[in-house]
Amino acid sequence: MIAIQDVWKAKKRIAPVVGRTPLLHCPALSEQAKGSVYLKLESMHAIGAFKIRGAANKILSLAKDEQKRGVTTYSTGNHGLAVAYVAKQIGTKAVICVSRRVPKAKADAIRKFGGKLEIYGDSQDEAGQRCFELQRKYGMTVIEPFDDPEVIAGQGTIGLELLEEQPDIDAAVVPLSGGGLISGIALALKANRPDMKVIGVSMERSAAMFESQKAGRPIELQESDTLADSLLGGIGLENRHTFEMVKRYVDETILVNETMIADGMTFMMDEHRLVTEGAAAVGVGALLHNILPVSGNNTAMIISGKNVDLSAFYKVVKV
Amino acid sequence: MIAIQDVWKAKKRIAPVVGRTPLLHCPALSEQAKGSVYLKLESMHAIGAFKIRGAANKILSLAKDEQKRGVTTYSTGNHGLAVAYVAKQIGTKAVICVSRRVPKAKADAIRKFGGKLEIYGDSQDEAGQRCFELQRKYGMTVIEPFDDPEVIAGQGTIGLELLEEQPDIDAAVVPLSGGGLISGIALALKANRPDMKVIGVSMERSAAMFESQKAGRPIELQESDTLADSLLGGIGLENRHTFEMVKRYVDETILVNETMIADGMTFMMDEHRLVTEGAAAVGVGALLHNILPVSGNNTAMIISGKNVDLSAFYKVVKV
Repeated sequence: MIAIQDVWKAKKRIAPVVGRTPLLHCPALSEQAKGSVYLKLESMHAIGAFKIRGAANKILSLAKDEQKRGVTTYSTGNHGLAVAYVAKQIGTKAVICVSRRVPKAKADAIRKFGGKLEIYGDSQDEAGQRCFELQRKYGMTVIEPFDDPEVIAGQGTIGLELLEEQPDIDAAVVPLSGGGLISGIALALKANRPDMKVIGVSMERSAAMFESQKAGRPIELQESDTLADSLLGGIGLENRHTFEMVKRYVDETILVNETMIADGMTFMMDEHRLVTEGAAAVGVGALLHNILPVSGNNTAMIISGKNVDLSAFYKVVKV
Repeated sequence: MIAIQDVWKAKKRIAPVVGRTPLLHCPALSEQAKGSVYLKLESMHAIGAFKIRGAANKILSLAKDEQKRGVTTYSTGNHGLAVAYVAKQIGTKAVICVSRRVPKAKADAIRKFGGKLEIYGDSQDEAGQRCFELQRKYGMTVIEPFDDPEVIAGQGTIGLELLEEQPDIDAAVVPLSGGGLISGIALALKANRPDMKVIGVSMERSAAMFESQKAGRPIELQESDTLADSLLGGIGLENRHTFEMVKRYVDETILVNETMIADGMTFMMDEHRLVTEGAAAVGVGALLHNILPVSGNNTAMIISGKNVDLSAFYKVVKV
């Protein structure tokens, strides 16, 4: 099991590579929630998304000779970007395997940060097979996008920062896909405050973790297009960590539709002049549509990233 | 004279009200500059602009009975927003006097943060007269937008943060209007590193500090419309601090035209998904057009704010 001290270790380990992100009070959402709503801007990392935390903790915890042989991963985008970025920082190579569904903007970004891109298959799972081939053939280390103790502990550092910045929060709203982000944050928050309410938000289309929890075991779903494309991907039939952690730590999961996601993205631009990717706007969208159970709470919402194709973004926010 | 210990005191004083802002490495601008370019995102404060630092330091340094009688200021926008925000945080009233030139979005924002708005005259100087009337009549304290030791020391805290985050920077590029921002930052940076290069950037239209320095004394200019509207306003014919500090600390001032400002704003959106107001994009615009003398430097650029009317913004970035 992953423990709170793993998150504290991660905090220390990633500090040289990962900057702090701002926590912004939002008057309009606070009014909507009849409480206080704070936005944790994980979109302000160098790569534009929270994934840098888990990737940094995993790669920095490898032995020197492992680091030297390089790293590889499969990803709908932001995790690939994170692995490429961190590998470049420590001077090793990264091969990123992605499915054909990856948005062009994210593929370009991975190349820009020095990652070698391999496009393979129609889903994250298929791209993953190529990854393990690279591991067998060249001894590269596969950096799992979410189902890895060091990755989870890395994402959990967000929870510790929240406690430092607003010790009086009593609810956290977290985008939920594979569950790495919410598992780490929930672990950190509930170790300190067992009464903390942790709410996951997924999109109605392809909510793999939600459906798996309902089924009582990891199941696979067909992927379909959504504004929250960063939330696509299965949780893995052989899931080792996040399925159990979500079961244990997450109090509730809310599902949002595409209109809610678009409204969340539009609100963030109109109210805060912040570009927000669909996956990061699910919590805001849910609150705007009054389906988020945070009335009266001091709520931290994780704004997980801003990597969105601009022409698609302008259509969503109706310029 | 304002000294480095005043900036350290400001750092301690404002910490409960003012969050840290991210420092982002920019690969594309680094290539352009044949060095390293870091963007200090002062746009990520609660009010969307750096002005919160100076306002917080000034208001928090007032005596309790002064705080109780309330504060007032004149401003093209962001400083007014800052005074309203800080006053609300400490539970006192703020009256903000602005000229008819203030953009609507900024006026609305001031009201939203609980400030009482008074629209008066055609320039910052005329609005200022009303302020001093409020001081005489009601004993309110006028919070000067830039020409005040505590305000300057507050803005200077950016310099200390830069040294903490990237101790190897050797150049700073700072938007220049009344000179409060650049005076504080230059004081903090040069106290630590006398060899630091500090460059101001103003717009060609109405560059009051630039023309005053050339004339050897504070002079008044006619204001004209510009994308960098936050940089409008005179330096005051009775300037007490910033004229001398700019003369002493600023190595060079660069002037940009409207095309350069628009290009800077567009770059920030395309490359970083960041909305940036014109005044905050002047340094990026100057670098993109190769008129910024930072070749080979490790340069910090102050991205001072993001408060721009969205419909105007979308026109500039050509959606």
